[in-house]
Amino acid sequence: MIAELYRNMLGAKSVIRETFAYGSRRAEEIGYENVFDYSLGNPSVPAPDKLTERLISLLETKSPAELHGYSPTLGNQEAREAVAKSLSDRFHMDYKAEHIFMTNGAASSIAHALRAVTVPGDTVLTFAPYFPEYQPYVTLAGLNLKIVPPDLGRFQMDFEKLEDMLTEDVSAVLINTPNNPSGTAYTTETLEEMAEILRKKEAEYGHDIYVISDEPYREIIFTGADSPYPASIYDRTITCYSFSKSLSIPGERIGYVAVSPRCPDAGLLIDMCGQISRGIGHNCPSSLIQMAVKDVLNETADLSVYETNMNLLYDKLMELGFVCVKPQGTFYMFPKALEEDAGAFCMRAREYDLLLVPGDTFGCPGYFRISYCVDTEKVKRSLSAFERLAESYR
Amino acid sequence: MIAELYRNMLGAKSVIRETFAYGSRRAEEIGYENVFDYSLGNPSVPAPDKLTERLISLLETKSPAELHGYSPTLGNQEAREAVAKSLSDRFHMDYKAEHIFMTNGAASSIAHALRAVTVPGDTVLTFAPYFPEYQPYVTLAGLNLKIVPPDLGRFQMDFEKLEDMLTEDVSAVLINTPNNPSGTAYTTETLEEMAEILRKKEAEYGHDIYVISDEPYREIIFTGADSPYPASIYDRTITCYSFSKSLSIPGERIGYVAVSPRCPDAGLLIDMCGQISRGIGHNCPSSLIQMAVKDVLNETADLSVYETNMNLLYDKLMELGFVCVKPQGTFYMFPKALEEDAGAFCMRAREYDLLLVPGDTFGCPGYFRISYCVDTEKVKRSLSAFERLAESYR
Repeated sequence: MIAELYRNMLGAKSVIRETFAYGSRRAEEIGYENVFDYSLGNPSVPAPDKLTERLISLLETKSPAELHGYSPTLGNQEAREAVAKSLSDRFHMDYKAEHIFMTNGAASSIAHALRAVTVPGDTVLTFAPYFPEYQPYVTLAGLNLKIVPPDLGRFQMDFEKLEDMLTEDVSAVLINTPNNPSGTAYTTETLEEMAEILRKKEAEYGHDIYVISDEPYREIIFTGADSPYPASIYDRTITCYSFSKSLSIPGERIGYVAVSPRCPDAGLLIDMCGQISRGIGHNCPSSLIQMAVKDVLNETADLSVYETNMNLLYDKLMELGFVCVKPQGTFYMFPKALEEDAGAFCMRAREYDLLLVPGDTFGCPGYFRISYCVDTEKVKRSLSAFERLAESYR
Repeated sequence: MIAELYRNMLGAKSVIRETFAYGSRRAEEIGYENVFDYSLGNPSVPAPDKLTERLISLLETKSPAELHGYSPTLGNQEAREAVAKSLSDRFHMDYKAEHIFMTNGAASSIAHALRAVTVPGDTVLTFAPYFPEYQPYVTLAGLNLKIVPPDLGRFQMDFEKLEDMLTEDVSAVLINTPNNPSGTAYTTETLEEMAEILRKKEAEYGHDIYVISDEPYREIIFTGADSPYPASIYDRTITCYSFSKSLSIPGERIGYVAVSPRCPDAGLLIDMCGQISRGIGHNCPSSLIQMAVKDVLNETADLSVYETNMNLLYDKLMELGFVCVKPQGTFYMFPKALEEDAGAFCMRAREYDLLLVPGDTFGCPGYFRISYCVDTEKVKRSLSAFERLAESYR
């Protein structure tokens, strides 16, 4: 019973939200500046000035009918063209507007992509550690989510387990690179090996297997990282994008689905997204926001702060003897906890006003997530708290 | 197979879209001003200046982080409070923010409401003539839509048929008042009789029956019309609203779900909407648009043009001997065609460059829809085309 299911979901506490709520209460006691809240993945840098300027200029010069009229089902045509051109230029592929569907952010992109390539009852695979919202996204589309266990040494992929779990009922593999919560990006080698396994299984089962590639952190890539574009490696790739992080506008709910031009039936899949929208409540983004974003598509907010924060934290954690794969992007890192029970570790961290999220939430017990989308000054002040936390385990 | 279903939906031609496409081609031949396109329900008046001013002022004075940050799952708190206050003041009910869920427009409101009060396999009733998108909205939520035949004399409700069709598997009744396509509003008497039938059936079956009230045209009400607020008459009412028509901003995709404060478990239903969002791709409206709309909530675009157009058309149709229930609101009217086959009638109307939509699309053969959200000058010029069309039937 679905309605019952939604009701039950309300009972399930989100550790992330609970931690954030604790942080807000604690901030009232000791001051906001003294709580090192690393719990939430909220972009902390401002949107680019060009976006604000573009919005104001549109409002001052265009008629309300042009700005606020219905956009076509598949999105503003010029926005679709601009996205296609940007992807083509950057990844040397042949995207056209017909391969792009504008969405209400990454959640909406994934909601459409899942429904376009599966039938209810199918299985979708993803890899631990994984973004916990994948569970409701997949389950509420009538699908089963199965989690490939983590490759703990590197947070790439455990190919043996992938092959075991890639049974005939799997119609899509959901990947997230660079990854929340690990901060690692899948390398060219990883994606090529994955692609080979998928093609082998496609031939074996005689049906298509799609990659749904969730890439909201694509633009937050650190110096020297190998972070290839998955659609350039596996043809049946549906790229799910959001401008939330690159432009620091998560509240505007704008993103897109891009079906690889090398994917057979790419145009049909996009047209199907338009039909899926009718069933799930038409996830068109705001017409005004579409028009503004299309003109600042290749801009980003100043994302350099995330690498600065990462380096400060990573160096300190290394110095303190933590085990951690060095992040290649995003604003997350995912070190091993100093005791087996990451939940207990994170509770102890609270004594030092460090708010961390246990890895259990991401299908990877024994680890914890640091979301370092916070002021660099605060990161610096938090380092001694990490020292005292580590000290308490000696 | 759902994916197959979406694919098949692509094959089904929409008469409305086909008519609109014909109109665009015809406009290229004889000029836009000579095509009397009454096919589309697109608001034709500009958004209020206050909305534009408010948007610019927000962009000039607030920080990007405030404007474009994540809004809470259930919507911007101040927007929810403003909606609750506006509904309470207007309809003398006790709405609080906790009864309001901000959505991505009416389609999104209905998507959430349907899933909150049904389980897959349930039946939803609606009344002909009805907005054809109800079919995909309901079907793709895993539900069965059944259509109560029209009350042809008045376009109110056929209560006998409603009672017959209100079988035990019905968990919700979807109403639309004022109505697209008939332009009529359900009277107090109609809604009271409906409420009585629903309460009787609730007692008989021992389960709840909800009214999902789709009210995007609530603000477009003509002089002297009796258009009561359904939630004030039936307690288990979920009001689905969109600002598309009242503010003339259909592209901005903003609306809300309001659960009647008199409905048991009202707050729970709203909280469930937040969970449903996770499954269907988080239909939050743009944060910027939420902030702007909350400040112009009680404004409307200048909607008086619709009544002017209605009177011009209605008087002419009466003069020509058409049978038509006088619209009480919206920007639609729904006269009887001059031959049994409304499709053939609308094809003949094209010879006079009148673009009309046959009633078959709305579950009501033999009638046709006029969408008069067009310039009044064009309405005036079209009157002689209606004359010649009627003449051709004499």
